Amino acid sequence: MNKQAILHIPESKFCYPKGQNTIVLRLRMDKEDEVDRVEVVYGCKYKYYLEQKTAVMEEKYKDDLFKYYETELKLEDVRLSYVFQIWKDKECCYFSEDGLTSSYDFKLSYYNSFQLPYINSNDIHEVVDWMQGAVFYEIFIDRFYQGAKDKNTDYINLEWGGIPDPKSFTGGDIPGITQKLDYLKELGINGLYLTPVFESISNHKYDIYNYKKIDGHFGTNEDFYKLVKEAHKRGIRIVLDAVFNHCSNLLPQFQDVLLKGKASRYFNWFMIDGDKIDTQNINYEVFGYSAYMPKFNTSNTEVQEFLMDIALFWIKEYDIDGWRLDVSDEVSHNFWRKLREAVKKVKPESVIIGENWHDAYSFLQGDQYDSIMNYAFTKACLDYYAFQTVNAQGFAEKLNHLLMRNNGQVNAMMLNLLDSHDTDRFFTYVHKNKDRLLSAIAVMCMYMGAPCIYYGTELCLEGGYDPDNRRCFDWEESHWDIPFRENLKKLLSLKQKPVLQKGDICISYDENLCYIIRTYENSEIILILNQSGKAVPISLTGTILAQNKLLDGNLLTDGFVVYEN
Amino acid sequence: MNKQAILHIPESKFCYPKGQNTIVLRLRMDKEDEVDRVEVVYGCKYKYYLEQKTAVMEEKYKDDLFKYYETELKLEDVRLSYVFQIWKDKECCYFSEDGLTSSYDFKLSYYNSFQLPYINSNDIHEVVDWMQGAVFYEIFIDRFYQGAKDKNTDYINLEWGGIPDPKSFTGGDIPGITQKLDYLKELGINGLYLTPVFESISNHKYDIYNYKKIDGHFGTNEDFYKLVKEAHKRGIRIVLDAVFNHCSNLLPQFQDVLLKGKASRYFNWFMIDGDKIDTQNINYEVFGYSAYMPKFNTSNTEVQEFLMDIALFWIKEYDIDGWRLDVSDEVSHNFWRKLREAVKKVKPESVIIGENWHDAYSFLQGDQYDSIMNYAFTKACLDYYAFQTVNAQGFAEKLNHLLMRNNGQVNAMMLNLLDSHDTDRFFTYVHKNKDRLLSAIAVMCMYMGAPCIYYGTELCLEGGYDPDNRRCFDWEESHWDIPFRENLKKLLSLKQKPVLQKGDICISYDENLCYIIRTYENSEIILILNQSGKAVPISLTGTILAQNKLLDGNLLTDGFVVYEN
Repeated sequence: MNKQAILHIPESKFCYPKGQNTIVLRLRMDKEDEVDRVEVVYGCKYKYYLEQKTAVMEEKYKDDLFKYYETELKLEDVRLSYVFQIWKDKECCYFSEDGLTSSYDFKLSYYNSFQLPYINSNDIHEVVDWMQGAVFYEIFIDRFYQGAKDKNTDYINLEWGGIPDPKSFTGGDIPGITQKLDYLKELGINGLYLTPVFESISNHKYDIYNYKKIDGHFGTNEDFYKLVKEAHKRGIRIVLDAVFNHCSNLLPQFQDVLLKGKASRYFNWFMIDGDKIDTQNINYEVFGYSAYMPKFNTSNTEVQEFLMDIALFWIKEYDIDGWRLDVSDEVSHNFWRKLREAVKKVKPESVIIGENWHDAYSFLQGDQYDSIMNYAFTKACLDYYAFQTVNAQGFAEKLNHLLMRNNGQVNAMMLNLLDSHDTDRFFTYVHKNKDRLLSAIAVMCMYMGAPCIYYGTELCLEGGYDPDNRRCFDWEESHWDIPFRENLKKLLSLKQKPVLQKGDICISYDENLCYIIRTYENSEIILILNQSGKAVPISLTGTILAQNKLLDGNLLTDGFVVYEN
Repeated sequence: MNKQAILHIPESKFCYPKGQNTIVLRLRMDKEDEVDRVEVVYGCKYKYYLEQKTAVMEEKYKDDLFKYYETELKLEDVRLSYVFQIWKDKECCYFSEDGLTSSYDFKLSYYNSFQLPYINSNDIHEVVDWMQGAVFYEIFIDRFYQGAKDKNTDYINLEWGGIPDPKSFTGGDIPGITQKLDYLKELGINGLYLTPVFESISNHKYDIYNYKKIDGHFGTNEDFYKLVKEAHKRGIRIVLDAVFNHCSNLLPQFQDVLLKGKASRYFNWFMIDGDKIDTQNINYEVFGYSAYMPKFNTSNTEVQEFLMDIALFWIKEYDIDGWRLDVSDEVSHNFWRKLREAVKKVKPESVIIGENWHDAYSFLQGDQYDSIMNYAFTKACLDYYAFQTVNAQGFAEKLNHLLMRNNGQVNAMMLNLLDSHDTDRFFTYVHKNKDRLLSAIAVMCMYMGAPCIYYGTELCLEGGYDPDNRRCFDWEESHWDIPFRENLKKLLSLKQKPVLQKGDICISYDENLCYIIRTYENSEIILILNQSGKAVPISLTGTILAQNKLLDGNLLTDGFVVYEN
């Protein structure tokens, strides 16, 4: 046995409450280790020595190095002690806080068993229920649709459809989104993630100077109110972009510091090296290297209160359904904890989605965000479909690996995406191969979490890195690839099946194919992917729900098939 | 290479800030893996592709399975990306979020490097400075010394020195402690951890019904005020026991619920299954199985405020120096976070010490406690000195292993103990072998963290499990073992050396001996332990600071020697 491979971390993604009396336990082992059975021996810590139960751990996930055992326990007494028993050839070894041992003294277990000492209700990471059926659509507002026809359009400097540069304005706005809600609903969308909408001089509006006012280019606060109302009527939820890491240099508080230096009452709102601001040499913390985007000091309780007030304002007054947190990994954990508590108190069913491109486990333990933009999922899809650095096995292993980064509730709320305003478009990455794009969308719809479609994906909109990834939506229907769009709609619609919302997931592979299987109660849905370059015969049972490149005789070429058993 | 053994977890004890610009990185590998060099390649994440620095990771700790590499980096830009490079035979492999790979594409590092995205000041776990030189003494008050000679002693039911039962009262009190402060100072104590002092009907007072009043058996609030004042005059700090997991059934709020059931405004302060309390069948959550100790609902914000008010009251009004948190593992994380923030705001240099017997990492990440009662250290000492289930190697490996459970700041504040009011006395565990007791105390003084002596250890007080571990202190000096006590004093005094407060630690072994070496600037102190049963020759340089069982010719029998180089 590879002793060094065994891993269990108490009170972590390896042992977490799902509810008041239900916990999930995980144990990691070397995937090559041959064992007969893995069990957990558990009981109330106050009488563990006297009363123990045993449950079998099920082998559920496999990545390139490890297999992961999992079990869910319903507990009568949540003051839990437990050790694992690993059986091989009728011999058993124990795994406790003291490591792997050939015997275990239950009488001394109060020193070295594993423990989940108690489940306090406010420490449980509750799943935001609607996220399990959410199908998101990200809109870069200036490029989606201009709804307000009679507005002052002096700011527009590029005609609709032109190739944008970093300073282009094309006129997209909030009334435009409202007018296209029926379009979006028909596509199968029930959640919108909007890039920033507040007052700002840029087209992207990630440099905000008034967080309580909708930017004039985009419309009015009333327009926004109407958008939320109309969206909700259609069962579409709205998530806004919270740019709390930094602001615009035009923010009045920053302007005050510019003017007064250390004498400003806002001096400590920012992180300044010296007594006054030097915009030439940028002696203050900023986003990236942008002098015009000063970074907030989110350790400062005044700043915390300022930002929390904003977060609550748009929830209370405009009934938005959640926040996507910009550059959230650079913001204080302490602040995110307070924000979460405040937001969830006002609207428990609102969702909090961080922008962390990397492993965000330190933010996803139930006290900060619910979810992140799952760029590690993006990368896995790029590796398989675009860079082609992994085959079916590598892709399956990577997808399993990512599920083991976080607990099940977080997995259920992950915002899975192929691209965004911050990446090249996936369609461009795969060299405009529509089959690969569709196949990747199928994966997004079948994986744990909510798919998020970047606006225009349904049109196979192209685009390299920023600003090219922010081209205008082409509303001329005669340009659309209708069969592609219909297939995409079919895939998005699958997400409304309970099995794709609450089902278990199993990801496996063979020489050419990758399989994603979801099961829930009596339902089973299977996705088969082929990117092997070969035509591979598929043995199908049940009903085909969606497919691409499945030939007669059930021969799958580079495409996918989804079927239900 | 054992790929499965390699472990690094971003933003965790494997990567944490020590200060505003200083971080510590750790990497775990199989201890048998032979590699030439381990390095970290790091840089600002916004230009990581363009500018990288390299630092060597030092092999610092070894346990039974792993070796741990560590380095400390001073950063100019704290927005850190990094990957590890492992060199063997002039070949290098990379370890990133994508695992171990033979090549690494720095151009795509924004997807899969490791990251420490930013260091926000309020996320740094600051060391409470005085904890690094602290030498604690735990007092079970009823058994230490009766200072108030003229108090009503009707409650005393056992004469001083009698063998206690669970209901014994012998008269020890707070004036008794105040009167013995000079004694404690002379012993080398500069921190007192007192078991509970608030109103309660038991001798241990873990069932409190008035959290703002000193129990009448122990004295008055004024007596307590005087104790703190006199202690502080002598440089002795006072840590009180915060029993916030549960209270006494006599607490007015619980009494109100007993009376009114669901109609009580305190109904949700407790966790009751039903509409009213049934003390016979205990239909409410309690500590252990004790009906008289109802458990607080620490998820309830009213309860949180009630308890925080108490915590702040004793700091603000009486100037105590910290709290030891009783049964802290069963209390809401959310509550501990709030308590920490409130307490540190009022008195940043106060310490928060949890009572977690198990791996408490989920409480020790800087947002909850500073430290715990280190019962895993206790267990390691028991294994070596009492149960004799490990030899020098096993002991060294265990001590190293425990250091890797938490970050360096937590290690520096750990409350290391051999016994307490909740365990058999260590002296009894080692069958009254004074040499072993002294040797274990030497370990406690040399290890990272603060030693904590249970009252009477200096007298070699005996005692099995509760209540026997709570015998009376014997103030008759003619009964004392003066040479033992002097040796203990010598050991405690070592803790005032900067090298034992701030020094690096290196723990190693050979066939018979275990070595603990602390180094700081030009100073080095070495502890050598022998429990092999053989007389072993020691090659000593420098000055002997303390020893036991070191014979002529530097032959160490079952004992220890501490020397300075």
